[in-house]
Amino acid sequence: MGITQQLADFVAETSFERLPPAVVRESKRCVLNYLGVALGACRHEAVQLLAGTLEEIGGHRQATLLGSRTKTSALNAAMVNGAMSHVLDYDDTHLATIIHPTGPVLSAALPLAEWKGLDGKQLITALALGMEVELRVGVAVYPSHYDVGWHITGTAGSFGAAAASAWLLGLDAGWTAHALGLAGTQASGLREMFGSMAKSLHVGKAASNGLLSAMLAQKGFTASPEVLEGRRGFCAVLASEYDLSRSVRGLGSDYLLLDNGLKPYACGVVTHPTIDGVRRLRQRHALRPAEVEEIELQVHPLVLELTGKKQPRTGLEGKFSIYFCAAIALIEGNARQSQFADEKVNRDEVVTLRDRVRAVVQPDLHENQAVVTVRTRDGRVLVERVEAASGTPGNPVSDEDLEEKFMDLVLPLLPREKAEGLAEQVRQLERLEDVSRLIELATP
Amino acid sequence: MGITQQLADFVAETSFERLPPAVVRESKRCVLNYLGVALGACRHEAVQLLAGTLEEIGGHRQATLLGSRTKTSALNAAMVNGAMSHVLDYDDTHLATIIHPTGPVLSAALPLAEWKGLDGKQLITALALGMEVELRVGVAVYPSHYDVGWHITGTAGSFGAAAASAWLLGLDAGWTAHALGLAGTQASGLREMFGSMAKSLHVGKAASNGLLSAMLAQKGFTASPEVLEGRRGFCAVLASEYDLSRSVRGLGSDYLLLDNGLKPYACGVVTHPTIDGVRRLRQRHALRPAEVEEIELQVHPLVLELTGKKQPRTGLEGKFSIYFCAAIALIEGNARQSQFADEKVNRDEVVTLRDRVRAVVQPDLHENQAVVTVRTRDGRVLVERVEAASGTPGNPVSDEDLEEKFMDLVLPLLPREKAEGLAEQVRQLERLEDVSRLIELATP
Repeated sequence: MGITQQLADFVAETSFERLPPAVVRESKRCVLNYLGVALGACRHEAVQLLAGTLEEIGGHRQATLLGSRTKTSALNAAMVNGAMSHVLDYDDTHLATIIHPTGPVLSAALPLAEWKGLDGKQLITALALGMEVELRVGVAVYPSHYDVGWHITGTAGSFGAAAASAWLLGLDAGWTAHALGLAGTQASGLREMFGSMAKSLHVGKAASNGLLSAMLAQKGFTASPEVLEGRRGFCAVLASEYDLSRSVRGLGSDYLLLDNGLKPYACGVVTHPTIDGVRRLRQRHALRPAEVEEIELQVHPLVLELTGKKQPRTGLEGKFSIYFCAAIALIEGNARQSQFADEKVNRDEVVTLRDRVRAVVQPDLHENQAVVTVRTRDGRVLVERVEAASGTPGNPVSDEDLEEKFMDLVLPLLPREKAEGLAEQVRQLERLEDVSRLIELATP
Repeated sequence: MGITQQLADFVAETSFERLPPAVVRESKRCVLNYLGVALGACRHEAVQLLAGTLEEIGGHRQATLLGSRTKTSALNAAMVNGAMSHVLDYDDTHLATIIHPTGPVLSAALPLAEWKGLDGKQLITALALGMEVELRVGVAVYPSHYDVGWHITGTAGSFGAAAASAWLLGLDAGWTAHALGLAGTQASGLREMFGSMAKSLHVGKAASNGLLSAMLAQKGFTASPEVLEGRRGFCAVLASEYDLSRSVRGLGSDYLLLDNGLKPYACGVVTHPTIDGVRRLRQRHALRPAEVEEIELQVHPLVLELTGKKQPRTGLEGKFSIYFCAAIALIEGNARQSQFADEKVNRDEVVTLRDRVRAVVQPDLHENQAVVTVRTRDGRVLVERVEAASGTPGNPVSDEDLEEKFMDLVLPLLPREKAEGLAEQVRQLERLEDVSRLIELATP
């Protein structure tokens, strides 16, 4: 049996009861993290422009744009919510593939579940299975697929969104394979767009394309059922090297989503070991910016490739500047969303310190690691080596930290009582009878 | 100035008055051909399934699904009409890139023009400019892009649809470049899907994604303005070899769309020289199937790669079988849409003759050429060498033939008087004040 069909079988044949407890637990943490980063971005300019465009297009009132009272088609909601979940660059990351897995999948599953009046167990199952398919497509084609320039969250995410939607719509294994085929042939997203609004559109399109794929397959619209392994299929066309045996190794027993990491900082995951290191030095030595002569960073090569911007001018650009990230972490002791406000990036004190940051590539380091050296004006040399960045498998974010991040993001939007009710509802998600209740609690 | 921006400038700065008369004439022929192949397919199963899915989604009543009274969002109409225009494999072909250029572009431009109440000159200009951008993206990346497995009509088509929509929305050159960026990062479509319904979805998605891109750019949604030439851009990521200088060579003076060919036969363009040859031998020698011992075809290598199916079971599969195409052309003297009915593919007489067709690859032949040799039971050896298939630049379809094709396709749907009125309206397209009038004439 082909790899695509094996993944489709896995999706069609798995029920909530067969999910390991750790998978259920991690899926619920992903839901909480997702709601935080999405609600925290609901008034972002890119989100508003996208929502405004789709409002012109219209659609039946099936599902809610998160953070608003606007109901629109499930497809429109998937696109807007998907972009919303990614625009802050604060979503989760599966480090082995650099996929941000929850966004594409939950942005399809949540509107579909709201539309169809489905329950919490169904949402958890769809999310877990969708993420699993997404990550298993990812491990087959990473790194060659990512290296050539594909935004892997957009491409692999389409498969994940289709798998989750197919499961929620009750497709059998055969039609689930068609849904995956339709999703794979719509998969897209170029890394060239990083730094523009189009980057978050990739996540929204992955969600809406995946949902559309499942809806089409439900009607009987056909695709090639060998989209992954076919001679002109996804892997052959979008990756110079790939290994599809990785997609099915341990399928149904090992869940790759357990290696997913929830970001403690509101910027690219490759910056996290650096920020960890700077924060530790700051705390241990009570460092003040004026004392610092130079900050030297030893980092993985990808860090400069992805976040090598030397002179960011906006908060968004700041997320792509390891120099700014190190500086703001030393000045403010954190790198949450509020640290990436435009005005902070341009403050004199920040610019001065940022220009004292030097980064050198150290190929022996893992993406998860960094060495931070601070040289002070009075001649001290302070060194911190980070072995596993916080929010990664070796050093996961605690439930308490996660809830704190969630509250930090949603409190500008929701009263505390409502926000706490929403978090509690997510903790009890398997008992929820109608996902619409979750949406109500998330509505300002 | 970058290549993307040069193309965007060309689009933003060109008006109807600057189009050469030959370009206006050919654009109108493309409109007529498009309306024929789309209306002829409006009841096709794939189209109905797609339309039904999008009906569930809904949308403001902005534009019409061709061949129906259904109005829906311009985005939905673009998707359905795009699929409709391609599903018969009877649309136009730019042989130098194997792009079917009108479908993605006009499927975006027509609903947008209907929605906004635009006129015939605007529609012609948008179509011409959109096709030009699409083909100029195509020539940069062909053949490596196609060879690896991209359905180039889907990928290059996204750019064309965005360019046409951007022009109709009046975007300036800067925002047109963003629209092209958004289109390029959504570009997709795998050749693995050939033979399934997903193939026509590619054209529909190219149209709707392109239209969405222009609408987003109009609102101020940003992309990379260097989608073509960027290091992680469309060409670098989706083509192993490319030459972007070809995209701008002669831009504004030479129109590549003048090399577009309108298909006389309802199947892949690579089969056309073979069908021409068989028809000529049939006519010259009054050949009857029972006389034929063997038909030997010498063809370009792509013919067997694309249409090498030996035992087609359906009309759709018949389009991908050079063996069936040769047989039916000898038996019925043509290869129009009615020759690809399911029952014809399975008729005993057809199957018998089909199994007597042998095809050999002859690498010296152009895709445009074929040598057909018929050996008769009474020992004659009849040879026909086709130098330029009908419907290609060296041997274009006449206006009369085109109109005959159009009538053949639309008469099952429209009364003759209405069909003739529609054809006449297209011939006078530059005088049309509101494109809605065209839609009315096309409605059963």
